[in-house]
Amino acid sequence: MKIVVQKYGGSSVATTDKIKEVAKKVIKKKEEGYHVVVILSAMGKTTDHLISLAKDISDNPDPREMDMLLTTGEQVSIALLSMALNEKGYLAVSFTGSQLNIQTTAMHQKARIKDIEISKLQKSLKEDKIIVVAGFQGVTEDNEYTTLGRGGSDTSAVALAAKLGASCEIYTDVDGIYTMDPRKLKNAKKINKISYEEMMEIASLGAGVIHYRAVEMAQKYEIPIYIASTFSDKKGTIIMNGGENLMEETLITGMASSLEDIQVTLLNLTSCTGSLYRLFGELAQQEANVDMISQMLTEDNKMNVSFTIPKTDLHIAEGIVDKWRKEDKSIQWEVSTDIAKISVVGIGMRSHSGVAAKVFELMAENNIEI
Amino acid sequence: MKIVVQKYGGSSVATTDKIKEVAKKVIKKKEEGYHVVVILSAMGKTTDHLISLAKDISDNPDPREMDMLLTTGEQVSIALLSMALNEKGYLAVSFTGSQLNIQTTAMHQKARIKDIEISKLQKSLKEDKIIVVAGFQGVTEDNEYTTLGRGGSDTSAVALAAKLGASCEIYTDVDGIYTMDPRKLKNAKKINKISYEEMMEIASLGAGVIHYRAVEMAQKYEIPIYIASTFSDKKGTIIMNGGENLMEETLITGMASSLEDIQVTLLNLTSCTGSLYRLFGELAQQEANVDMISQMLTEDNKMNVSFTIPKTDLHIAEGIVDKWRKEDKSIQWEVSTDIAKISVVGIGMRSHSGVAAKVFELMAENNIEI
Repeated sequence: MKIVVQKYGGSSVATTDKIKEVAKKVIKKKEEGYHVVVILSAMGKTTDHLISLAKDISDNPDPREMDMLLTTGEQVSIALLSMALNEKGYLAVSFTGSQLNIQTTAMHQKARIKDIEISKLQKSLKEDKIIVVAGFQGVTEDNEYTTLGRGGSDTSAVALAAKLGASCEIYTDVDGIYTMDPRKLKNAKKINKISYEEMMEIASLGAGVIHYRAVEMAQKYEIPIYIASTFSDKKGTIIMNGGENLMEETLITGMASSLEDIQVTLLNLTSCTGSLYRLFGELAQQEANVDMISQMLTEDNKMNVSFTIPKTDLHIAEGIVDKWRKEDKSIQWEVSTDIAKISVVGIGMRSHSGVAAKVFELMAENNIEI
Repeated sequence: MKIVVQKYGGSSVATTDKIKEVAKKVIKKKEEGYHVVVILSAMGKTTDHLISLAKDISDNPDPREMDMLLTTGEQVSIALLSMALNEKGYLAVSFTGSQLNIQTTAMHQKARIKDIEISKLQKSLKEDKIIVVAGFQGVTEDNEYTTLGRGGSDTSAVALAAKLGASCEIYTDVDGIYTMDPRKLKNAKKINKISYEEMMEIASLGAGVIHYRAVEMAQKYEIPIYIASTFSDKKGTIIMNGGENLMEETLITGMASSLEDIQVTLLNLTSCTGSLYRLFGELAQQEANVDMISQMLTEDNKMNVSFTIPKTDLHIAEGIVDKWRKEDKSIQWEVSTDIAKISVVGIGMRSHSGVAAKVFELMAENNIEI
């Protein structure tokens, strides 16, 4: 029997009524003759609520204990969905990342999946059970609980699909991938098929529908991902190899905007290559996701460098800069929090001149400072 | 260094502010030169909230999934207290029942502790860490999460104290054991010392300050338990061997009342001994806690039997009776939910005549029907 991995996001399981709706959707797939493995996120705003509890206690909570705290969110969802499936007369069983031995690296809050032991899953599938797995979480060799970072449930789903040779469906509160966020732009068009590469571009730029690393992993294992709405039957978007036709047809596949980044600028650095290597090396070591980088030499042969990172990684940059300034007090730094990142994605950016110019023109016309 | 196990109940960790207060109390003990192992319950009404989510989904939720759901409550508390301790500059580490390998039987929601592996604890104590453990939960051999039943965190604490050769302190919202519930009776007196036997009597009758099985285990391993208030420095009550002096002095150690029970009556049973054996055998097998039993022969040589069980075990009795009635339709049954159980505890009940009579007299004077 074919196996399908279905992932439902936090807004899809925000209330017990919504969980019952998800149960119906899962059962429908089961009745179509599939083995179903479900990955869930935490209910609605649960993760935000847990984070606010932690912030009440500490400005900089211990990452291990944050993972101890946050993994409870998905555990609640999986128990409730299993109950809902049992209630409808279907055998279902839930597993945490620890129980399923979703092995990850030991970097708390940003762990990466190393491997998944599927013997337990296979046993439950043989018993014809629907399996409900906590997304976003895993476990180290020492049985320490870890989380995969925001949006990590998508990655859990793709990893499980890859291990099980299953297809992968991601259900969310939008009914597919659009050329632009449909909540922001009314005449945004839905994309039926998109290549991994283009989806990664869009995802990495903060479009939010699917996690960047999930698409990266899907490409690696050639798992097509179907993205659709939990609560409608509208046709969604498929992410797969061979979105070429689409790329030939359109100059711009999509645009994305994000308010989640900050720009950090360091002034008066000495010794160009060495210090850049050291700066981005230390940022990478602490898994801060550096995005846009620009540098500039000053007249007195010093260097200024700017880069963007997620707001949530500000403390990492602060730590590194504080250490540097102890060594060289002439280094200054500035942080701009009031920025937006606008991204334009599509083959046309490279092959057709004038696309960037058109974008800049539109910005100017609307008085947006670049 | 001496080890002390401290347990804090749900009302002691109901908010992040209260958790910070608990952290201070833990640190004070640490500063006095103890290794401290803390057992926590879920925050305030968390368990009730989780149960209500489950009831939204199913009238009779799967017990395995209930344990999956309920174990999250304590996991949140332990993460937050560890953060609070870290914030104050103390090394702390939290563990779930699964991580600590608190081995239990496989009876979900009513599991019993079989053993605790303490190598992980000893390693953390050697690193001079404060250890924060999720109460109320354990794990089966197959790594299935289990819970110990309401009040089970007390049992977790005593079991850990026994394994570690530690002393045991239970902090709660009352400042010790009283002769009568001080919230109900203003001139109730605090007991300084009480024997295990008497405490068990009081606890089994629903006095609520400490879990019955915890006292039973404390007696078995001769662990003295100190019960006091989390948020005051008033002297509490110690439960230990040798409350004899107390028993000589007073006829009645305490009284307890409970509204948590129901009375089930079965009418027209045949074959006395056999059916009683079967009835209480089946109830025991499903771990329904039968308390008071009375039986009566009828004129036509049939038997009526009444017993009390906790309200929460009603469905177990229902299941058994339904099965029986399929075999013998003459059996009838009645359930009284509107009852109170009043218990009088003390050596005087046996050694001095007239104590029971005095109690009945007081009931009659106050128009309480027995």
